[in-house]
Amino acid sequence: MDDRVRDHAAVLVDWSARIEAGDNVVVNVAEGAHELGVAVAEKLGERGARRATMYDSDEMSRAYLRTHDGDFDGSPEHLLGLYENADAVLNLGGTRNTSATVDVPAEKRQASATASKELREVVLNTDWINTIHPTRALAQRAGMSYEGYQDFVYDAVLRDWEALAEEMARVKEILDEGSEVRIETEGTDLSMSIEKRTAVNSAASVAYDSHNLPSGEVFTAPDGTEGTVTFDVPMTIRGRRVRDARLDFENGEVVDWETTAGEGALREVIETDDGARRLGELGIGMNRGISRPTDSILFDEKMARAVHLALGRAYDACLPEDETGTDSAVHVDLITDMRGDSELVVDGETIQRDGIFEWESEGET
Amino acid sequence: MDDRVRDHAAVLVDWSARIEAGDNVVVNVAEGAHELGVAVAEKLGERGARRATMYDSDEMSRAYLRTHDGDFDGSPEHLLGLYENADAVLNLGGTRNTSATVDVPAEKRQASATASKELREVVLNTDWINTIHPTRALAQRAGMSYEGYQDFVYDAVLRDWEALAEEMARVKEILDEGSEVRIETEGTDLSMSIEKRTAVNSAASVAYDSHNLPSGEVFTAPDGTEGTVTFDVPMTIRGRRVRDARLDFENGEVVDWETTAGEGALREVIETDDGARRLGELGIGMNRGISRPTDSILFDEKMARAVHLALGRAYDACLPEDETGTDSAVHVDLITDMRGDSELVVDGETIQRDGIFEWESEGET
Repeated sequence: MDDRVRDHAAVLVDWSARIEAGDNVVVNVAEGAHELGVAVAEKLGERGARRATMYDSDEMSRAYLRTHDGDFDGSPEHLLGLYENADAVLNLGGTRNTSATVDVPAEKRQASATASKELREVVLNTDWINTIHPTRALAQRAGMSYEGYQDFVYDAVLRDWEALAEEMARVKEILDEGSEVRIETEGTDLSMSIEKRTAVNSAASVAYDSHNLPSGEVFTAPDGTEGTVTFDVPMTIRGRRVRDARLDFENGEVVDWETTAGEGALREVIETDDGARRLGELGIGMNRGISRPTDSILFDEKMARAVHLALGRAYDACLPEDETGTDSAVHVDLITDMRGDSELVVDGETIQRDGIFEWESEGET
Repeated sequence: MDDRVRDHAAVLVDWSARIEAGDNVVVNVAEGAHELGVAVAEKLGERGARRATMYDSDEMSRAYLRTHDGDFDGSPEHLLGLYENADAVLNLGGTRNTSATVDVPAEKRQASATASKELREVVLNTDWINTIHPTRALAQRAGMSYEGYQDFVYDAVLRDWEALAEEMARVKEILDEGSEVRIETEGTDLSMSIEKRTAVNSAASVAYDSHNLPSGEVFTAPDGTEGTVTFDVPMTIRGRRVRDARLDFENGEVVDWETTAGEGALREVIETDDGARRLGELGIGMNRGISRPTDSILFDEKMARAVHLALGRAYDACLPEDETGTDSAVHVDLITDMRGDSELVVDGETIQRDGIFEWESEGET
């Protein structure tokens, strides 16, 4: 076994999920994640945790949903029984085919998801972590060789998380104390209020209320957005590729927009509901192991030297108790590369120029 | 997908486990049983059952057990929560390596099994079924090509179970009404009492209190065994091959024995406890899809034209309420081929001659 698989398992179990002796852990293993599953089992044994191993097979989900009549009746009691008694849930993604479920009717998928709402809430109450094991299918989607993609994934996952968490704490402090953020780069001149909002230091650990491995971003919930933003990193939204989306905001709301590709997909998102016309998230990517997009939001939004904005729902963690923030059925991230001629400004002070934080140019990191 | 995989899933879900709409089903998928898992998911969707899919990985179990300190503390609560809320449990065997766990210390395996006693009892309270998907590793153990082994497995699994259940009911009736069984063939002249014992018609369905697919045997609990038996079908016992075991019984107890191979393994069994010197089971194999041993007890003991006897524990289902039968920590099956010059006699009446039941020679089946 590649040493990096064992290192990945160690980060997942110890840093991310903080597993301790006696913890009841559910491990969800995707079809292509067997090897990481073995490394995680080894680590759970070492910690004296108690494991239940689920098989998260796209092909079985497809087979089940296609023959089902679509009349789903709430969350299955046995799965509730499992997750209600779980301390932690480790989701080891790693599909063998990113198109494995494309021929499942969308309404059936939706009906199944709606029926399982209670189950999802139970899972969100555990110390859950999403990660992925590199597979050939994911390498293909990223447009990379298998070996190249493995290097990419482990560069992103095997960070000095403690040091990154400290650096991100600095950004969080600036955002927590700040009132207004401005983003300027080619095709973008956008301002938004972050008054009274709280930023999340997403350091890939439940100890930071962060549930992705890799993570490495600081995000908050903006309001009152004004100006224009161009998202120059291509994204796949609802199965379609969206390129160079340019959005104009007035009073916090999208008033005009265009794309060079995938207009229909973006239209569907924006027309979902009122909240989908507003921003729910401003995120600042800080994972320097990720230097290029790979068509996977788990990685793309953490890319260093980029910022992302999400149309739709805001996270409660970012909002004061008496505010609700943007509410919507959707939360769709869009990314702007800051490596060109750019500035990220908080209350008139430039904290990042051309994608480099002020303290980086001072040689601090 | 091979049509036979879908047929296997249909027999498993409909005939064996009797799954109905709304049932909470746990499917345990072995590393090599993915394809059968897909077919089962399809069938569960069709029935409107609710599924939880577990991954039963030998390699993960090995990894977990090897690093664990061996101090297991009862059954994990999350697994109890899962199985306590399950109506049915489908175990889809199919390893990729029959030696995958040989380097797990036996005492650790034992400690883990002992700690999970409560969990095992919960599973036994469900409509559980064990079956296997043919893999290359199982073909190798059987000494067969992969294709040849697939044919073998599906011949055994895809029977007319309704017709076989009826024929087996006839044998059950004879045994239930009978008092004494005699088995005669080369190297064997054995008699035993079955007075007041109840035979089980093991027809591969929970409706018959039968939990193996394939099944196809009628078994009861004998007593007061006298004479000599030679088990000419080779068996693997505790990892060692046992050949031509010849046992002499007096007053129901083994008084002398020898083998041509694997003497140590058989000695370990016989010396386990007092019950291990007595018979706990007499089984009559009736699955005509199984005509040769494949070093797998799931198949071997159902082989038509053979009888098996087990040293050790008797099944409660065979005993009257006021009798306990043979009690032991072990239950080890040994098989005698009846295709040679043989007779199976109940209360002086020959019911099977040279492996052929009386009604078969009459052309009834």
